[in-house]
Amino acid sequence: MWHGRFKQDTADIVKKFTQSLDVDWRMYEADIEGSIAHLKMLGRTGILKPEESSKIEAGLCEVLNEIHEGKFAPSESLEDVHMNIEARLTEIEPLGAKLHTGRSRNDQVATTTKIYLRKRLHSLKDDLLKLLRAFLDASERHINIIIPGYTHMQQAQPISMGHYWLSWFETFIRDYSRLQFAIDSLNECPLGAGALAGSTLPLDREMTSQLLGFTEPTRNSLDTVASRDYMMNYHYFASMFMIHISRLCTDLITWNTQEFAFIVLPDSFCTGSSMMPQKKNPDVLELSRGKTGQVIGNMIDLLINLKGLPMTYNRDLQEDKRGLWASVDTVESVMKIIAALIDEVEVDEKISRSGIDKGYSLATDIAEYLVMKGIPFREAHAVVGRLVGWCIEKHIAFGDMTLEQWKEHIPEADENMMKILSPEESVRRRNVYGGTGFEQVKRQIHESHERLAVLK
Amino acid sequence: MWHGRFKQDTADIVKKFTQSLDVDWRMYEADIEGSIAHLKMLGRTGILKPEESSKIEAGLCEVLNEIHEGKFAPSESLEDVHMNIEARLTEIEPLGAKLHTGRSRNDQVATTTKIYLRKRLHSLKDDLLKLLRAFLDASERHINIIIPGYTHMQQAQPISMGHYWLSWFETFIRDYSRLQFAIDSLNECPLGAGALAGSTLPLDREMTSQLLGFTEPTRNSLDTVASRDYMMNYHYFASMFMIHISRLCTDLITWNTQEFAFIVLPDSFCTGSSMMPQKKNPDVLELSRGKTGQVIGNMIDLLINLKGLPMTYNRDLQEDKRGLWASVDTVESVMKIIAALIDEVEVDEKISRSGIDKGYSLATDIAEYLVMKGIPFREAHAVVGRLVGWCIEKHIAFGDMTLEQWKEHIPEADENMMKILSPEESVRRRNVYGGTGFEQVKRQIHESHERLAVLK
Amino acid sequence: MWHGRFKQDTADIVKKFTQSLDVDWRMYEADIEGSIAHLKMLGRTGILKPEESSKIEAGLCEVLNEIHEGKFAPSESLEDVHMNIEARLTEIEPLGAKLHTGRSRNDQVATTTKIYLRKRLHSLKDDLLKLLRAFLDASERHINIIIPGYTHMQQAQPISMGHYWLSWFETFIRDYSRLQFAIDSLNECPLGAGALAGSTLPLDREMTSQLLGFTEPTRNSLDTVASRDYMMNYHYFASMFMIHISRLCTDLITWNTQEFAFIVLPDSFCTGSSMMPQKKNPDVLELSRGKTGQVIGNMIDLLINLKGLPMTYNRDLQEDKRGLWASVDTVESVMKIIAALIDEVEVDEKISRSGIDKGYSLATDIAEYLVMKGIPFREAHAVVGRLVGWCIEKHIAFGDMTLEQWKEHIPEADENMMKILSPEESVRRRNVYGGTGFEQVKRQIHESHERLAVLK
Amino acid sequence: MWHGRFKQDTADIVKKFTQSLDVDWRMYEADIEGSIAHLKMLGRTGILKPEESSKIEAGLCEVLNEIHEGKFAPSESLEDVHMNIEARLTEIEPLGAKLHTGRSRNDQVATTTKIYLRKRLHSLKDDLLKLLRAFLDASERHINIIIPGYTHMQQAQPISMGHYWLSWFETFIRDYSRLQFAIDSLNECPLGAGALAGSTLPLDREMTSQLLGFTEPTRNSLDTVASRDYMMNYHYFASMFMIHISRLCTDLITWNTQEFAFIVLPDSFCTGSSMMPQKKNPDVLELSRGKTGQVIGNMIDLLINLKGLPMTYNRDLQEDKRGLWASVDTVESVMKIIAALIDEVEVDEKISRSGIDKGYSLATDIAEYLVMKGIPFREAHAVVGRLVGWCIEKHIAFGDMTLEQWKEHIPEADENMMKILSPEESVRRRNVYGGTGFEQVKRQIHESHERLAVLK
Repeated sequence: MWHGRFKQDTADIVKKFTQSLDVDWRMYEADIEGSIAHLKMLGRTGILKPEESSKIEAGLCEVLNEIHEGKFAPSESLEDVHMNIEARLTEIEPLGAKLHTGRSRNDQVATTTKIYLRKRLHSLKDDLLKLLRAFLDASERHINIIIPGYTHMQQAQPISMGHYWLSWFETFIRDYSRLQFAIDSLNECPLGAGALAGSTLPLDREMTSQLLGFTEPTRNSLDTVASRDYMMNYHYFASMFMIHISRLCTDLITWNTQEFAFIVLPDSFCTGSSMMPQKKNPDVLELSRGKTGQVIGNMIDLLINLKGLPMTYNRDLQEDKRGLWASVDTVESVMKIIAALIDEVEVDEKISRSGIDKGYSLATDIAEYLVMKGIPFREAHAVVGRLVGWCIEKHIAFGDMTLEQWKEHIPEADENMMKILSPEESVRRRNVYGGTGFEQVKRQIHESHERLAVLK
Repeated sequence: MWHGRFKQDTADIVKKFTQSLDVDWRMYEADIEGSIAHLKMLGRTGILKPEESSKIEAGLCEVLNEIHEGKFAPSESLEDVHMNIEARLTEIEPLGAKLHTGRSRNDQVATTTKIYLRKRLHSLKDDLLKLLRAFLDASERHINIIIPGYTHMQQAQPISMGHYWLSWFETFIRDYSRLQFAIDSLNECPLGAGALAGSTLPLDREMTSQLLGFTEPTRNSLDTVASRDYMMNYHYFASMFMIHISRLCTDLITWNTQEFAFIVLPDSFCTGSSMMPQKKNPDVLELSRGKTGQVIGNMIDLLINLKGLPMTYNRDLQEDKRGLWASVDTVESVMKIIAALIDEVEVDEKISRSGIDKGYSLATDIAEYLVMKGIPFREAHAVVGRLVGWCIEKHIAFGDMTLEQWKEHIPEADENMMKILSPEESVRRRNVYGGTGFEQVKRQIHESHERLAVLK
Repeated sequence: MWHGRFKQDTADIVKKFTQSLDVDWRMYEADIEGSIAHLKMLGRTGILKPEESSKIEAGLCEVLNEIHEGKFAPSESLEDVHMNIEARLTEIEPLGAKLHTGRSRNDQVATTTKIYLRKRLHSLKDDLLKLLRAFLDASERHINIIIPGYTHMQQAQPISMGHYWLSWFETFIRDYSRLQFAIDSLNECPLGAGALAGSTLPLDREMTSQLLGFTEPTRNSLDTVASRDYMMNYHYFASMFMIHISRLCTDLITWNTQEFAFIVLPDSFCTGSSMMPQKKNPDVLELSRGKTGQVIGNMIDLLINLKGLPMTYNRDLQEDKRGLWASVDTVESVMKIIAALIDEVEVDEKISRSGIDKGYSLATDIAEYLVMKGIPFREAHAVVGRLVGWCIEKHIAFGDMTLEQWKEHIPEADENMMKILSPEESVRRRNVYGGTGFEQVKRQIHESHERLAVLK
Repeated sequence: MWHGRFKQDTADIVKKFTQSLDVDWRMYEADIEGSIAHLKMLGRTGILKPEESSKIEAGLCEVLNEIHEGKFAPSESLEDVHMNIEARLTEIEPLGAKLHTGRSRNDQVATTTKIYLRKRLHSLKDDLLKLLRAFLDASERHINIIIPGYTHMQQAQPISMGHYWLSWFETFIRDYSRLQFAIDSLNECPLGAGALAGSTLPLDREMTSQLLGFTEPTRNSLDTVASRDYMMNYHYFASMFMIHISRLCTDLITWNTQEFAFIVLPDSFCTGSSMMPQKKNPDVLELSRGKTGQVIGNMIDLLINLKGLPMTYNRDLQEDKRGLWASVDTVESVMKIIAALIDEVEVDEKISRSGIDKGYSLATDIAEYLVMKGIPFREAHAVVGRLVGWCIEKHIAFGDMTLEQWKEHIPEADENMMKILSPEESVRRRNVYGGTGFEQVKRQIHESHERLAVLK
């Protein structure tokens, strides 16, 4: 459709190499939607006669029908979804040769992509809300279950399992704001920017923008065809989302080992080994984590593509969609399956507590108890630290020590101190805002419900 | 300060390996600021006696003074900025041993980092505004200069140089919104989250949050010490900013070659060659582009660090600041120097126009002219395309053709068509919203001033 | 096939999520090849009876036939290529239940992947040799054509176009050595490593290794199932290859602009614009460059996947092949099309020389001439530099200056100096080893043929 | 030194921005070494008089002395190490103005960098050999200690701890080959390539190459100043090395938790918590893992820098060394500290075995036992799998079952089978080449010593 000035046909190897049908065909509906808006505008502004516009629109609807009915096999030799549809349209309705009036593939591709991406991101938003709800539900279910809290993977202080799930709620609600940011960056309509400089025809860009549900037309035609910021915003959201998934999965995989053992996964979410009959592997968690690289790799792909690229449009940019769709598909599948899995995770409270009982994770509680008795924190820390050293040597746990033994090491020890020496007390007493105290967790669950209600 | 339970001293090789003074010392002021807020809160809530709080605060001020006066040489064997300051404080004022009450390095580091980063990002915002103004100024200066617009690096359609600069205004104002997003993510105060679970002491987190200029305390203590989202938001902004810089630089470097030659750089922004006496190289542009990789590399550094990391804090995260500060310093220097350079760039109008005169970049204008005469666009495109093919063969430019010659190829050619065959007309007539038409560029300059006025 | 210990069926959403048929089905032939070698070994060592081994082998051949004839539709519910083939085998031949004796999917997958990858890399090697030959041919074709050599994209010194093509020969022959390194890392046979620890059965690993064309069995079973080094070696080769392609493409795209214009691409390797009738775009070069990000992204994908992964096999690793095959396919297509394009590139000698004539790229020649007259280089450089400054001010080219004018600036100028003031002389006289002098280029072409003859 | 043609001085902000002293000053010795070789060649070929060459050499030695004695403070306004040294030289010895004869900074920088990098990489090789020896030593120490082998972080089959350490020996010896590959790519001498095209002076490149310990001069001058392959080869080695470190660290961190607990780290390699008195954190392991991102980020930095860069030298490339030195320093420190740590790691055999006793990791042994009795493996796998399911339900371990109980589920069970049901037997019987059997581990230790002896 652009061969006017060419003396040679495109070589076959070149046709195959330059086609993009494999990555853009999935947008056929968005492409037709964009074309119809463009047509309506051409008709209403008088660039085309209204009846021309109507006939071409009818032709486009027929093309869409043919696709839905599986009658339309697009051809690689027509390069992409756009040329395929235009070519078929012109067969059905010769006036189709007027469709591309005042339009270039550059603004057309950008418009089509934004429409399709917008739809996918709205769907991701729904899935993300479901995931957020799954964490909130789990938090309510497990609020009274106590597990060891870890730093450096070492037992640190006891926490409520509900508090743990809420930490993911906080994490993923930030991802929600990144997703929203990405969606907001899809608000401007490229149509009318032309190849790079606009058009000499009296196009009404405001009208097409409105017809297609955008907020306004883009403000600079060069930028319109050159920028891929709106894709990058998605990629950034996706990369952060997957990073968070990878950390969540590591925790659950670790806690599901025979050694930690306080997380129980349902058989239906695990698979076995072809060789070892006893194996029950947390495959869903591993695979989800394993997909992190792909999603970040797709972000880097586009960054590298853009680096040093001259203005405005260059064919390099045709490669922008391959990684984008792969990433959207992957993120969607991970969101859905992790939400489903979180609903099924069980915690073996007996095992999770036993870890605390055998360790020294109440040490800070004692130090802080001494602080309230007026001992400088650094001193209290040193005293308790030395006691822990002694305990390890003697193979004695805090829970096994009598008040007398305590007093030998800490003169300030008393009955009141003995009372706080339980995981429940430890959690209950961390009652600062945002802390693991049961009351605080309840408060956050309540507030999280309210924050969630506002979203969407 | 944490050696209570240890039987051995830390090995020297380990001390050297684990210290972070080289990356965190620069935050000493923010660290002391955070400590004073913490102290005030301890005093007002009665956890410390008011006079204790005051004395320690006085001690901290003295430490700060010592640093400012260059009297304080921090020591690697004290690990980091935090331990160095606390150790010196306790020498000056033994009550300093009470400073760390209800605090862990985990929430302390996060607080210090956010305070310091916030200050740097506000400063970047000022620099970015200056850069935006530089593009706007250049746009006004060069609005009437016509250059070839390029797609695929091939001459496409003539554009106003003012339109070109505005495309960067649009680009970098999006970066502004990403920077603002990053700044907004610094709004929550970590102090009081403790090591991971909060504190058993009656801390008032709302108070420290307000004293330090945060909007509110963080909502989940585990997330507080585990998350580095607020750094990543900066890294993402920075990566996109540098990608845009790299594209801008490529354009200016290309247009500054002997072959394009329509961009003139001042001698003061170029350097020569040690071997070739005639060279005048666009080093500032090349180096700026060359720093893109570093900034993106720093983003990827942190992403890789975070991937698969278990909750909550792990010492891996100590590596989060090395790349962060390197990136902030780099972005700052690039912002400043590019803004300065844009102010000095000149355009050689004669050369930029001559490119258009020798080429066929008015071809679309003719095709669109034919469309207004009722010829379907696809047909018009083909006719003009064939004409271009003929011209190339005959080595004839559009500008050299007589009306008779035009009519041989395009029967619809007429006097009116001849009138539009100039770069000025071509630009002027692209009068759609966001297009390169002089009127549209003026409109966008006007609106851009208004958008800029609202920022900050 | 591993459901013995499971009480629940795998959830459908999990089956879909964990299957890998879409990335591993393409290896079916390699899988069967590996299974047959395993079988033969089981038969010869007496672990299976010889007739069992033969019957199962016959079954496998039938499965392969069914696939070739398109009669076998693999099912996602059977997870992967391996389970699909084993399941079908067992339907055909119940003894197939003995095939997996002494084998785990872990060593099976590694073996299959290495066999398939080896085949693909050998094919890439052939393509790379063709590309090397294309550069060598172009070098011979264009040895006497002089173009401006650039540093900082500024004209630096005249060079032979043959010298330019040879620089790519040098570059890509290094890629060849990286590809060879990657191939060499496929030499060890994983079969017999089992799930991670080997087998209690008396397997003969030496035998399977030989049957499958490996050099030796792997030396550590844990490492065998954990490592993906052999994939990374390929990814590294591929990333470097694409980086080089991206640089080559930038040059040719730039030199093919209307402004540089000394490179001519055939119409058959270019495409036009849907809007602008005059456009002829270097799409193949742009797209090739645009694929760089994808290939590097795939490398980073696997790096991120591996980061922090515990030993030994984890399901995360199933994601290793998606990016690998995408990368191999991409690199293969780029190799082929760039080799074809290089064969067709023409250089417009008149234009390439005119750039030199208008500039000052012989300045170094003059400075070096003065050096031979005894003037210190720094002084000679300064003198010539000042002359260039004067010339630019006066709009005068070196070629336009008379001997008298030369003498005004450079007392040492003489007739001999005038003789060297031509692009030909400039090139000819750079006669140091590896330099652009025609003789040196010829020498390198000769030696390059010899180096190429040895390869493969 | 290159200001001849310039009318304006370089702006101060530009000087600061373009200087590279902060990254290249460390190479001063290599720079002088390169200059002396160049000088000697100029003298011997008669381009300089022998006595000129000697005097300049003496001057250079004096500069070096001044640096060693701390008398020489390089200045940013002289751009880089090269200009600083040349400027000082010329002050000391005016003939220094002849030093740069037949040389450009482009070939000078490349030569200096290769010399310095070569020295650093040889040193890394020594450190890597030490690390390899540490694994081999640990392997000998722990050959008879049995730990659970893991796949998917689930107990899989018992293995020898010696076998585990050997898996790292195999891994890191591959890194050794990558390091060697990087070193080999430093063999060609850039000196004489000039700015890009060689020189018109009769340089003897073979001579400088030999004087500086290179194998041969580079073969193409354009490629010489454009390529950074030799840096990338290092970066790739470094990235892989750190990926391996990250995996090793994850294992040891996990096994050092209270829950796994079979790895014991010395106090001298751990640090405590500022808040929690009981903590002993594996900081060295975490920090080492945390540095992975930096090293990979540095590789990506250079890749992004190179992407799409035109030939030949561009100032972007000045940014190549920042990340390079950071990476070399990091890798060196990690190599040293991990080797030191491995020497100190202890394994608590009682704990490591108890994990096996409580689990079902001998399941494969039983299945393979049944295979030797003629039962098809798939059947054997299913039978044992169902038994495991039953055991879990009944909370019974394999070790607790009587022969009668075995027979209820597996009719083929007998006394002989009972004999193999121990971790020792399980390890011992995996006696295939490369397997965990004690004999095989011994064999590999022996062979590894031999492989190591050949290296270096």
